[in-house]
Amino acid sequence: MLAHRLIERKRDGGRIDPGEWRALALAYAKGHVPDYQMAALLMACFLRGLDRGETAALTEAMLLSGDRLELTHIGRPRVDKHSTGGVGDKVSLVLAPLVASLGVAVPMMSGRSLGHTGGTLDKLESIPGFRTNLTLKEARAQIERHGCAMIGQTPEIAPADKKMYALRDATATVESIPLIAASIMSKKLAEDLTGLVLDMKRGSGALIPDLDRVLELADVMIKLGGDHGCPCVALVTAMDRPLGRACGNALEVEEAIAALRGEGPPDLMEVTYALGAEMLVLADVTEEIDAARRELEKAIGTGRAAERFQRIIEAQGGNPAVIDDPSILPQAAECEIFGAPRRGFVARVEPKAIGRGIVEMGGRTRVDDRADPTVGFVITARPGDWIEAGEPVATIFARDRAGIGTGRHALRSAFVIADEAEPPLPLISHRVTAQGPELYRAE
Amino acid sequence: MLAHRLIERKRDGGRIDPGEWRALALAYAKGHVPDYQMAALLMACFLRGLDRGETAALTEAMLLSGDRLELTHIGRPRVDKHSTGGVGDKVSLVLAPLVASLGVAVPMMSGRSLGHTGGTLDKLESIPGFRTNLTLKEARAQIERHGCAMIGQTPEIAPADKKMYALRDATATVESIPLIAASIMSKKLAEDLTGLVLDMKRGSGALIPDLDRVLELADVMIKLGGDHGCPCVALVTAMDRPLGRACGNALEVEEAIAALRGEGPPDLMEVTYALGAEMLVLADVTEEIDAARRELEKAIGTGRAAERFQRIIEAQGGNPAVIDDPSILPQAAECEIFGAPRRGFVARVEPKAIGRGIVEMGGRTRVDDRADPTVGFVITARPGDWIEAGEPVATIFARDRAGIGTGRHALRSAFVIADEAEPPLPLISHRVTAQGPELYRAE
Repeated sequence: MLAHRLIERKRDGGRIDPGEWRALALAYAKGHVPDYQMAALLMACFLRGLDRGETAALTEAMLLSGDRLELTHIGRPRVDKHSTGGVGDKVSLVLAPLVASLGVAVPMMSGRSLGHTGGTLDKLESIPGFRTNLTLKEARAQIERHGCAMIGQTPEIAPADKKMYALRDATATVESIPLIAASIMSKKLAEDLTGLVLDMKRGSGALIPDLDRVLELADVMIKLGGDHGCPCVALVTAMDRPLGRACGNALEVEEAIAALRGEGPPDLMEVTYALGAEMLVLADVTEEIDAARRELEKAIGTGRAAERFQRIIEAQGGNPAVIDDPSILPQAAECEIFGAPRRGFVARVEPKAIGRGIVEMGGRTRVDDRADPTVGFVITARPGDWIEAGEPVATIFARDRAGIGTGRHALRSAFVIADEAEPPLPLISHRVTAQGPELYRAE
Repeated sequence: MLAHRLIERKRDGGRIDPGEWRALALAYAKGHVPDYQMAALLMACFLRGLDRGETAALTEAMLLSGDRLELTHIGRPRVDKHSTGGVGDKVSLVLAPLVASLGVAVPMMSGRSLGHTGGTLDKLESIPGFRTNLTLKEARAQIERHGCAMIGQTPEIAPADKKMYALRDATATVESIPLIAASIMSKKLAEDLTGLVLDMKRGSGALIPDLDRVLELADVMIKLGGDHGCPCVALVTAMDRPLGRACGNALEVEEAIAALRGEGPPDLMEVTYALGAEMLVLADVTEEIDAARRELEKAIGTGRAAERFQRIIEAQGGNPAVIDDPSILPQAAECEIFGAPRRGFVARVEPKAIGRGIVEMGGRTRVDDRADPTVGFVITARPGDWIEAGEPVATIFARDRAGIGTGRHALRSAFVIADEAEPPLPLISHRVTAQGPELYRAE
């Protein structure tokens, strides 16, 4: 009866009170509200919207449907980064050990691949032996010892969100700003953070392409964080092309290891440093962004960050030798160089086409299924580059010859080569705080 | 994948094509589309609407998800009546045998109680032995022999609608004009009719109280019927008070039998004659409404209509002696007269309070459960009557003393007695055809 009344009210544009959200989230997590009622409510929320108070109440209700990580006692600042998701985005793999190596606790709870976008958990699991399903107790102990754990959403964390997220995926109710904000923040607030940095993707490959809506989402999340004593800063970054060169689970781990050794592609390093500097300032490790950045560069240069990743891999059951010998990672059976179909400027490299290509090559299947971690692309040409016909622009990695064909097909639709090229989106365009958005001044 | 794409499109205000509706209805009827996806789609349809073409396509899709009754071969006009539902509305019980006794085939497929409104099936089943679950074959044979069968929606008829209706009830997506129209018409068109008369209730006790929306619904249904070669006429009738005096399953059967013997309350007779006359004209039994009405009065006066009901009851396994001795119907264990709480005019008798009272007294439970058929009310005071304090205005029928208390409570909230009384809604206010609505001229 509760659910029916709330659906009816939201359908007619009314508000759902905090107590009602709490009762609903608990009842749904326990299976007392069926999926079909929740689906109708989610569509009504999608189309009618939630105001600020309702978004906060829903976030709180999902948070309270489960446990928290509880890290207050460790006496260190606790800062995490969340990305709204993209293609080639392996920043978490570099950033978590890097920032942890500078004395910040990074309780990084990540997700799986979704639609055309990659997931940190799937990437990590391509490291032989790596376990992402730590219990809350194991995660807590590891954060105390190594300053970082890289895990998935445990069954104890925001179970109402976990169920609701799967349902939204099946019912076309994902792209709603209040629902996205509540889902992300209910999980992040369960990490018991003292600060959070948001990487807000924009452009054709982002979940929300449009800048205005990205800024709106950032604003909602920053306010939610602030209300819960967790200051947030957001950077708006480009997802009109893949980030870095590697796209695909094992390929991205390899590129992340290269980045930790100081050999990462410039765009990946730039985004990693920018986000990392915000994390260090939020953690009070340094006062100024410039100083923070120098700390980060030093941690990479001295090998301290790579060594921290090695410790984390070992602690989570993975083979730590991968840091020195990335060929330990699973390798694709087939690979082939892809040449430019014509001469001209690279006008676009569409992330969606790349991401979907990886899905079709068997690189990602459904949630909780194991995908083939070896397939993917290494893309060497960037938007704005001038190329000759036949010049190599990418390498395809596949499980068999049919997969190479699928990959070739994906690259043909991803690459747009033209006589003139529009400039791509700025890599980092805005910085958003509780005071609102400002243009980002690159180094 | 199909369902997800259609949800997304409807969510964004797009159209779903006839072929897509067909594929979706079939897949849903077969269980290949889960309830939660259909629930999200129904909410998107509720909030975004369906245009005329989509409503027709959905109707057709639900119709084609099952079988038809197929009556063409019987060579008689086939006309049915549908009511949007109310309290005390036992018109079908009188009208079906009455019109069948005048040479028209009436393949009456009815529903069960819903919310505060009663259901013809539940009423019929209070007749000892009466079976409403005939197979399509049995129904067809009975219509050939007796001109009428009074049955429920069989599993073969519009199975997509049957599932979708139950889902709408649980997800607050009932009161949508295109969804209501498609649901009703998919079932009615499966009866293979040559004409259909619609009793569109308005007022506080109707599913859709507001006249403008009632006229809109009538218009949509009349056009759907016309497109399928089934001309329709609608009368808009009052549901701001119960129809007739008896409210409750067995009590209403008793009143319907009285009506067939010429002893029905005036408002019930008026609505029955008005709808019946439209049916006879649609069936070409008479050319003029006035002549049709005289035929109906004659069929009641000669006992021919009552005799036809007796044959139908016998054919469907019920005890035919009930026509001559209504005390064969199950009788309530307790009854009590309810006196007016004060003197004044009867300003209102709220159908919702009456209907909910019957539910609370055990008269209706959930779909497919058997309810206690004996409980209910006989309401003798009408809006506009002047009454003295303590004067009897109703009788409560209950299964025990606690039920009498529940009934008394319901009557106290149903009856509004005041120093002045607004006039109630006209019993029949509009007549709607394919040419649009006109004011109804009472006899």
